Amino acid sequence: MVNETQHTCSASSSSRSDGGSSSGSESSKDNSRCSTPVLDADRHERLREKMRRRQDAGDKWFSLEFFPPRTANAAVNLISRFDRMGAGGPLFIDVTWHPAGDPGSDKETSSMIIANTAVNYCGLETILHMTCCNQTKDDITGHLQKAKRLGLKNIMALRGDPAGEEWEEEVDGFNYAVDLVKHIRSEFDDYFDICVAGYPKGHPEAESYEADLRHLKEKVFAGADFIITQLFFRPETFLKFMKDCQAIGITCPIIPGIFPIQGYHSLRQLVKLSKLEVPQEIKDVIEPIKDNDAAIRNYGVELAVSMCRELLDSGLVHGLHFYTLNREVATTEVLKRLGIWKEDPRRPLPWAVSAHPKRRVEDVRPIFWASRPKSYIYRTQEWDDFPNGRWGNSSSPAFGELKDYYLFYLKSKSPREELLKMWGEELTGEESVFEVFTCYITGEPNRNGYKVTCMPWNDDPLATETNLLKDQLEKVNRRGILTINSQPNINGKPSTDPIVGWGPSGGYVFQKAYLEFFTSSEIVTALLKVLKKYELRVNYHIVNVKGQNITNAPDLQPNAVTWGIFPGREIIQPTVVDPVSFLSWKDEAFALWIEQWAKLYEEESPSRMIIQYIHDNYYLVNLVDNDFPLENCLWQVVEDTFELLN
Amino acid sequence: MVNETQHTCSASSSSRSDGGSSSGSESSKDNSRCSTPVLDADRHERLREKMRRRQDAGDKWFSLEFFPPRTANAAVNLISRFDRMGAGGPLFIDVTWHPAGDPGSDKETSSMIIANTAVNYCGLETILHMTCCNQTKDDITGHLQKAKRLGLKNIMALRGDPAGEEWEEEVDGFNYAVDLVKHIRSEFDDYFDICVAGYPKGHPEAESYEADLRHLKEKVFAGADFIITQLFFRPETFLKFMKDCQAIGITCPIIPGIFPIQGYHSLRQLVKLSKLEVPQEIKDVIEPIKDNDAAIRNYGVELAVSMCRELLDSGLVHGLHFYTLNREVATTEVLKRLGIWKEDPRRPLPWAVSAHPKRRVEDVRPIFWASRPKSYIYRTQEWDDFPNGRWGNSSSPAFGELKDYYLFYLKSKSPREELLKMWGEELTGEESVFEVFTCYITGEPNRNGYKVTCMPWNDDPLATETNLLKDQLEKVNRRGILTINSQPNINGKPSTDPIVGWGPSGGYVFQKAYLEFFTSSEIVTALLKVLKKYELRVNYHIVNVKGQNITNAPDLQPNAVTWGIFPGREIIQPTVVDPVSFLSWKDEAFALWIEQWAKLYEEESPSRMIIQYIHDNYYLVNLVDNDFPLENCLWQVVEDTFELLN
Repeated sequence: MVNETQHTCSASSSSRSDGGSSSGSESSKDNSRCSTPVLDADRHERLREKMRRRQDAGDKWFSLEFFPPRTANAAVNLISRFDRMGAGGPLFIDVTWHPAGDPGSDKETSSMIIANTAVNYCGLETILHMTCCNQTKDDITGHLQKAKRLGLKNIMALRGDPAGEEWEEEVDGFNYAVDLVKHIRSEFDDYFDICVAGYPKGHPEAESYEADLRHLKEKVFAGADFIITQLFFRPETFLKFMKDCQAIGITCPIIPGIFPIQGYHSLRQLVKLSKLEVPQEIKDVIEPIKDNDAAIRNYGVELAVSMCRELLDSGLVHGLHFYTLNREVATTEVLKRLGIWKEDPRRPLPWAVSAHPKRRVEDVRPIFWASRPKSYIYRTQEWDDFPNGRWGNSSSPAFGELKDYYLFYLKSKSPREELLKMWGEELTGEESVFEVFTCYITGEPNRNGYKVTCMPWNDDPLATETNLLKDQLEKVNRRGILTINSQPNINGKPSTDPIVGWGPSGGYVFQKAYLEFFTSSEIVTALLKVLKKYELRVNYHIVNVKGQNITNAPDLQPNAVTWGIFPGREIIQPTVVDPVSFLSWKDEAFALWIEQWAKLYEEESPSRMIIQYIHDNYYLVNLVDNDFPLENCLWQVVEDTFELLN
Repeated sequence: MVNETQHTCSASSSSRSDGGSSSGSESSKDNSRCSTPVLDADRHERLREKMRRRQDAGDKWFSLEFFPPRTANAAVNLISRFDRMGAGGPLFIDVTWHPAGDPGSDKETSSMIIANTAVNYCGLETILHMTCCNQTKDDITGHLQKAKRLGLKNIMALRGDPAGEEWEEEVDGFNYAVDLVKHIRSEFDDYFDICVAGYPKGHPEAESYEADLRHLKEKVFAGADFIITQLFFRPETFLKFMKDCQAIGITCPIIPGIFPIQGYHSLRQLVKLSKLEVPQEIKDVIEPIKDNDAAIRNYGVELAVSMCRELLDSGLVHGLHFYTLNREVATTEVLKRLGIWKEDPRRPLPWAVSAHPKRRVEDVRPIFWASRPKSYIYRTQEWDDFPNGRWGNSSSPAFGELKDYYLFYLKSKSPREELLKMWGEELTGEESVFEVFTCYITGEPNRNGYKVTCMPWNDDPLATETNLLKDQLEKVNRRGILTINSQPNINGKPSTDPIVGWGPSGGYVFQKAYLEFFTSSEIVTALLKVLKKYELRVNYHIVNVKGQNITNAPDLQPNAVTWGIFPGREIIQPTVVDPVSFLSWKDEAFALWIEQWAKLYEEESPSRMIIQYIHDNYYLVNLVDNDFPLENCLWQVVEDTFELLN
């Protein structure tokens, strides 16, 4: 929104008051008897309510602005950045809209799809920018409908830069942001939260500062819920602007836009686009160090921190909006120094929640996708309602096919060459595969000196929780029990436990031990004999790629393997082992051998044939030890199996 | 069914096979994602499936026949008998139908209402007898519709005794039981399980034994699911009959009707009605002791036990049907000696389940009605669906008004004089009320030497589980904390624990400590101060009869206070403290002071005014200690409160 322009005249007659109390018909559904225990009020509130609640509670917050990337690879990186910066706890992020870049399309780099990914796959409250000038009403309505369908709930309504030099107002067209605000309210009622832009120094094209304030008031009275400002360089600029807004009756939240200077050229570019003037005292510091990026960034961080402090200390500012320019370091540094970066991200549930409104009640998932939550979200995106309270009998839910293993939000962050270094340029047998699994578990470099930081089933290094099982996992992987998912048993740890905790404080969390692995049919034969001894204690499910299927799950019922008991609430059981979903998962788990690993090698090459052999002949096994208060018996099961084999 | 008669000719063309595999459209609903974890397969099966499963598993079972009582008081007693004999684990009970007694009416003594009570309030699988002769098709359809509406699923289809001496067949009328079977199948499809009567010696009115067998086959082929026989005196009578049935192609279960001789006169009466002949060897024993009831009963028990053993040992008999004549002792004795009386009734859930089909998924209830489950069932009988898996946000459910405190299935088993002896002929102040509560807890006689075995809120002596808290409860009741409901905290006891266990074996059960009591406003004021110290640990809800309402329940959410973790299942949380339902419960709890206690005394009498004062001024309080793994802090809360008051 740095290059946003604004209308200079036009009257607004809308009398809609700011941030009304109605929360729309969507949320009233939550009063039915089946609603989820409100684990995290955030999931049930609209953005404007969250802002109000944070303000009432005296909590300071921040938000982050990003622009859509140019390439698919950049999109993959941006999504990792969403995940990392999302961990710091932004109230929302926003994605800008560039009319020239086909922003409403289905391309993986479009504003629409990036915002969709942020909401659905990264679980971030997201504002999608939208400009209106030079667009037809139908185009705009189409974009808004698509945004709604994708689960987007917030729009930043902007005019955008007119095309061509000689721009003229169109009669009945979308000439100004206020027209877009009115259109959204008239076509979509109260569905969207609407944000508009404010100009602390007045819009460069406005007749005057005062005229610009009046136009801002029109936008608010037409239905905008809050204001984010253009960047500025001095805190007093914003504070004066805010008082002036309040003086003419603008009562909605006004969020200052903060631009940490990150480099000489980006600053110049920005200033040119926004027609802002950089104060002399800043120029005086920057000019002498203009070729020293690190020095400029340090200065930019200092400047931003001191300005933010002054704003927050004024008592008038509750949230700060950061123009990140898609970069991580400077903004994160500022936030950490301000103390508003959430250092200890408390998890509302053991897995990352999605922010799509239709998923707001979702609180149960099968454990299988623990390391591939984006794939789970993708494969369940067509569901109309989501398991809530319990998984239930899941003979009905159909998982979407996952044919495209290169969906950009599922794509590995590592390029092919790196994967080959990790997983082996050349495999010599099943044992070299065992070695890769073992190195991933131990964190030790492989025989060529490379650390294995990801696997086809997990694009990230081992989770902290899995580390609890490291020694045992190492031992079994060496011997061909190729683990891809596991959790230890937990018999009532506090919900605030830094490793296994989740949910509100004052609760207790529990887990049944879980182990999932690929292994050879020889080992499976022995395992099945051993499991007879554990029949009443261990639930198992064993399946190969052809679908041969052995389980002792009673009536194919799901088994809750993670649950939490909290003060004043019903029980939450967010993770289950569901025998029916396991069959959908096994297709994906087996396919990853081929799609992610085998295909790294030439066709017919020995390496490829080794992976293909494993894919064709190994079994995927999951084991649950139901006796969570006792010592985990699954290691003993594996030990007994090896003993039987010897 | 001892006086059942049967048709002698008429052909059946129905080809419906016995006990088909379709289980009807009702049960297919259970496949939706929201179904309950199958805790107890019994709840989900029809009677004929239960029979088959028991037979396949080699389990022997029994069933019990009762006739409707003559008076309302007898009905109250019969229902207690259902509860007591139900504990022994009958596969079903059945209720006979006497056309002269208005059997389909809403009177509390009608067959229909007694069967309704057995199913809905006692949770017993129930067969309602129905006779058809001398009735119109509309009458019969009406009875069947009513039975279905009430949750009855099984009909014993009988002809009944024709009225008048000169009975003649009506053309197109219901002349024989087979007509009723056909009618049920044609009007209600497969909804009902149908039982018909078999005559081991042939029906007295039949042309011949062989003709009677053919008529039985017609009834089966018309759609009956199983056969219960008329009583007989020698095991070989039944075994021959069974073989003869099988020889002509009757393959459905045939259950022998067992009549333990309980007295000389009842035997004579029965023999007269059924036109059976008592074998000489039995007459020889009975005649000399005909005035010695105890001796006859002992003989009857011996005879029944030895006959039942022979039947069971034959390998052909899996279930035994007992003609109880509404008496308890002889039948229970026979069952115990046969070893098929369930000595250790494993509870599928902590509370007694109802057998109405629409409640088959029900697995969550508020704790408040723990001692008044029949009242809970009554007040929720209009609900269309029942909480399953979780209570959820219960702002919607409306509890039925409970105006009639004398509904016969809620009526106290003790008459007024007895209640006065227990609760005091004359009260001298609030302290005499404290004493009554204390005596109920301790089991010690009151000052007049009477034990207090029931209270307005609980018609039974203290539950075994509550006994765990006896010392503490005694102490607080003495001081005016008048407890009406409580449970200790449990941190993972085996589900097979004889006192607190429930659900399938191999699981673990948990509880949060709960305490519910009436107390004065003075104590409440101190309590509220003390509770501030326990704010994060204890949830409380305090309300008086006027509805003044103080709670710290977050968002009025329910709090799960009993739950169980089982192998291969989702978590079951059968009991919650729901702040919304508590307001419906408090109306009932306060009204019981007046309806059950105050009204024992003259209007304006001091005793009555004392109870009225308590009703008007006391508060009803519930407390939950959320920290179930720690020592229950609720006693400390009460202790602190008394300390503050001193």
